[in-house]
Amino acid sequence: HLLKGKSTSTSFGVFFLQMGWGDLGAFGEPSKETPNLDQMASEGMLFLDFYTANPLCSPSRAALLTGRLPIRNGFYTTNAHARNAYTPQNIVGGIPDSELLLPELLKKAGYTNKIIGKWHLGHRPQFHPLKHGFDEWFGSPNCHFGPYDNKAVPNIPVYRDWEMVGRYYEDFNIDLKTGEANLTQIYLQEALDFISRQQASQQPFFLYWAIDATHAPVYASKHFLGTSQRGLYGDAVREIDDSIGKILKHLQKLGISENTFVFFTSDNGAALISAPKQGGSNGRFLCGKQTTFEGGMREPAIAWWPGHIPAGKVSHQLGNVMDLFTTSLSLAGLQPPSDRQIDGIDLLPAILQGQLIDRPIFYYRGNEMMAVRVGLYKAHYWTWSNSWEEYNKGIDFCPGQNVSGVTTHTKEEHTTLPLLFHLGRDPGEKYPLSFASAEYQGVMERISNIVQKHQVTMVPGEPQLNVCDKAVMNWSPPGCEKLGKCLKPPESEPKKCIWPH
Amino acid sequence: HLLKGKSTSTSFGVFFLQMGWGDLGAFGEPSKETPNLDQMASEGMLFLDFYTANPLCSPSRAALLTGRLPIRNGFYTTNAHARNAYTPQNIVGGIPDSELLLPELLKKAGYTNKIIGKWHLGHRPQFHPLKHGFDEWFGSPNCHFGPYDNKAVPNIPVYRDWEMVGRYYEDFNIDLKTGEANLTQIYLQEALDFISRQQASQQPFFLYWAIDATHAPVYASKHFLGTSQRGLYGDAVREIDDSIGKILKHLQKLGISENTFVFFTSDNGAALISAPKQGGSNGRFLCGKQTTFEGGMREPAIAWWPGHIPAGKVSHQLGNVMDLFTTSLSLAGLQPPSDRQIDGIDLLPAILQGQLIDRPIFYYRGNEMMAVRVGLYKAHYWTWSNSWEEYNKGIDFCPGQNVSGVTTHTKEEHTTLPLLFHLGRDPGEKYPLSFASAEYQGVMERISNIVQKHQVTMVPGEPQLNVCDKAVMNWSPPGCEKLGKCLKPPESEPKKCIWPH
Repeated sequence: HLLKGKSTSTSFGVFFLQMGWGDLGAFGEPSKETPNLDQMASEGMLFLDFYTANPLCSPSRAALLTGRLPIRNGFYTTNAHARNAYTPQNIVGGIPDSELLLPELLKKAGYTNKIIGKWHLGHRPQFHPLKHGFDEWFGSPNCHFGPYDNKAVPNIPVYRDWEMVGRYYEDFNIDLKTGEANLTQIYLQEALDFISRQQASQQPFFLYWAIDATHAPVYASKHFLGTSQRGLYGDAVREIDDSIGKILKHLQKLGISENTFVFFTSDNGAALISAPKQGGSNGRFLCGKQTTFEGGMREPAIAWWPGHIPAGKVSHQLGNVMDLFTTSLSLAGLQPPSDRQIDGIDLLPAILQGQLIDRPIFYYRGNEMMAVRVGLYKAHYWTWSNSWEEYNKGIDFCPGQNVSGVTTHTKEEHTTLPLLFHLGRDPGEKYPLSFASAEYQGVMERISNIVQKHQVTMVPGEPQLNVCDKAVMNWSPPGCEKLGKCLKPPESEPKKCIWPH
Repeated sequence: HLLKGKSTSTSFGVFFLQMGWGDLGAFGEPSKETPNLDQMASEGMLFLDFYTANPLCSPSRAALLTGRLPIRNGFYTTNAHARNAYTPQNIVGGIPDSELLLPELLKKAGYTNKIIGKWHLGHRPQFHPLKHGFDEWFGSPNCHFGPYDNKAVPNIPVYRDWEMVGRYYEDFNIDLKTGEANLTQIYLQEALDFISRQQASQQPFFLYWAIDATHAPVYASKHFLGTSQRGLYGDAVREIDDSIGKILKHLQKLGISENTFVFFTSDNGAALISAPKQGGSNGRFLCGKQTTFEGGMREPAIAWWPGHIPAGKVSHQLGNVMDLFTTSLSLAGLQPPSDRQIDGIDLLPAILQGQLIDRPIFYYRGNEMMAVRVGLYKAHYWTWSNSWEEYNKGIDFCPGQNVSGVTTHTKEEHTTLPLLFHLGRDPGEKYPLSFASAEYQGVMERISNIVQKHQVTMVPGEPQLNVCDKAVMNWSPPGCEKLGKCLKPPESEPKKCIWPH
């Protein structure tokens, strides 16, 4: 280790945004428009078998920061079986105080923690990121949907630390016609400034860069609009790629790159429902966001740490965003909490010694374990894309793809005879193994044991995504008075949230 | 240019085999098992928008060697509309004497030319590769199908130069149960020996390495069996990758790499009907071999020429296998024939100066121009995957893929209103542009002009793939007497060949 100045601890940067496995040149995107991410990969380690913890944003983000499956940390719903849920403006729940977040733990080791971008773990006061270990925040609690009328629905606030500094479409514009917005540039500047300040103070830091330009409504700043072969989505990707390149170069220029462990990955697969104009690519994988097929949860992932990770390495370690929790603690010399089940593993042996750690990947949708991957095999215990009712309205999570008996529009139970795929021979999940084959029998025996153990010992957390209430929307966030942007909330009327898929 | 010894001419190596766009790590294959091809790309130029001239083997090979579309050089059928055809054992036709092949032309400039592997341009005496400019041959005239009984159908011969040296499944075994065959090792050794001899004699050479391990029945040698995550197909890919690495290293070791222009590409998209056990990957592109969707004709392509092509370059030049004809002539200082239409262009400005040459790509199936690409747009004038009759028998060129109105099982004519796709925003050909859009109108005006000019000036060659006759099978190839392997041909009974798709 090369350690600079007083700082003996490794800093962390996590780039966490919505991008599909197939969106990067390094992962085979045919336009090959991500030179900086491709270079990051060629200087670091490319993970080819890396997963998110959930096919939707909020639960994945909760999992990243807690190292725990959403079913444990409460980021799921029991309003219906196997339904995706997240934190829209009217959600009552959020990250429970009982959960220990990565920044809370790092803080004890002297880290300064900043989140830039989308928090998405609840927007009521008790869920504020600065109450959960972050020291600084620039960004919004929810997705950048809108514009709203501030009567039925308020516009989403943008916070600096404890207080809002404006609202989307009012003070932070997104032109929905042209797709122009300069938000990524603002988020980039925030990152560069934070890193400079930390370097100056010689403090180790954790920077969580959770930006959202590739999430619908997709946007890019003027300089990048129209520069991609891929249209607006590609423009946004190019701007993010450019920004990440600038952040990495900044670390190098400040001489702290060898002291900063940086990881790039995604919270869910590309949203194919937004294609072709606003949707990305999951490469050759099946379906996308919202599903537990590979396209919904297999993510691009790159680890970068010059001087530690040899350049140009590739890993087939089965990884998960929850591993960043455990890996970061390990790098900081901290132990993960021992009073609870942590699902993330320490990836350092895989990253630094090229080891392959045998561990399963669980694919959850809401309260249901839909599938599990063990080695190169994936067993589906439930299959569902979305309902016929939704599909007939044009909501399609698997456009142009239809694998009979697999991409089902009715929720199909396979718990007694799971559908088994070999992801090496069949990454696209098109050819289930014959139930009668010796291969099926042998593999399923092993997988069944793992699943049984997982399910028997599972203690679900209290579900946070069951109750919705218009009164909890971002009517009067802290700081609204100074800006004259306080809105009057309606009467409280708590209801079960409706999660259609 | 660094020129060694007396030789002042550039030699050529062309690796031409069946592999899909998505089969290489450099193109996003999730197992990333092609380190040598990936390195070839990182040392050379990766073409992302490179095409074959036909979605089937024989016509593509004829196009590569003549620089002309199969519709011109005769490698098509008029037995039915828009049908794929090739050169099985009973084909009567083959490469016409009137066609000028690349090796014929290079020979005049002092080149020694060798084909290793599958010829596929006809197996009757007049079509022998040594009658069309090659000086040496080791390989077979047809695909390595079999084993046959030598009564109804003879086993395919393997030739050394003018004479057969044995037959598949007799003298050159392929174990169809295990997939074991050492043919790639034999073809590798042939290549290394030829290169050594040429280097020793200081002669410029053209080596056409047309091996077939990834074509069903897929095979690999013992050392590679079971080494891939992808199963037998991956084993074959790994052996080919390893062999190509050895050939490139051999050129470097002999000090002639800077004097040898090497190109890797494929004759058609991966055969998805052979998946998952024997089929490759076309990445995120639609359908596969036999179709004029991107999966059928977009190919992996790499140009390698150390000291001339800067390392790690990527090109979006629309390229075609026919361009290798014109490019090779250009490098050899020769003019392409002026008495006929040549479809291939000289890629040197794209390769050496990074220019982008505006040119269309035509997608033919048999006698019909099915589609055309101009810039990032692709217009389908006809769509067809295969017939319902075939599809219902389980023959599926687009497994798991179904784009309504696009992957049609009836032959659909769109000549008055072509289906238009933007391949940058929509590489998977899932979202036809609205006929009413200004974009459609503007683009189609341009494309219509190009197509009209192409069709009005088209002079089709005499179709070679219409007549089949059991009597022309490989019963008694030259050299059979010495081996005691002559078989008695049946009575001649010429018929129209039946081409089902």
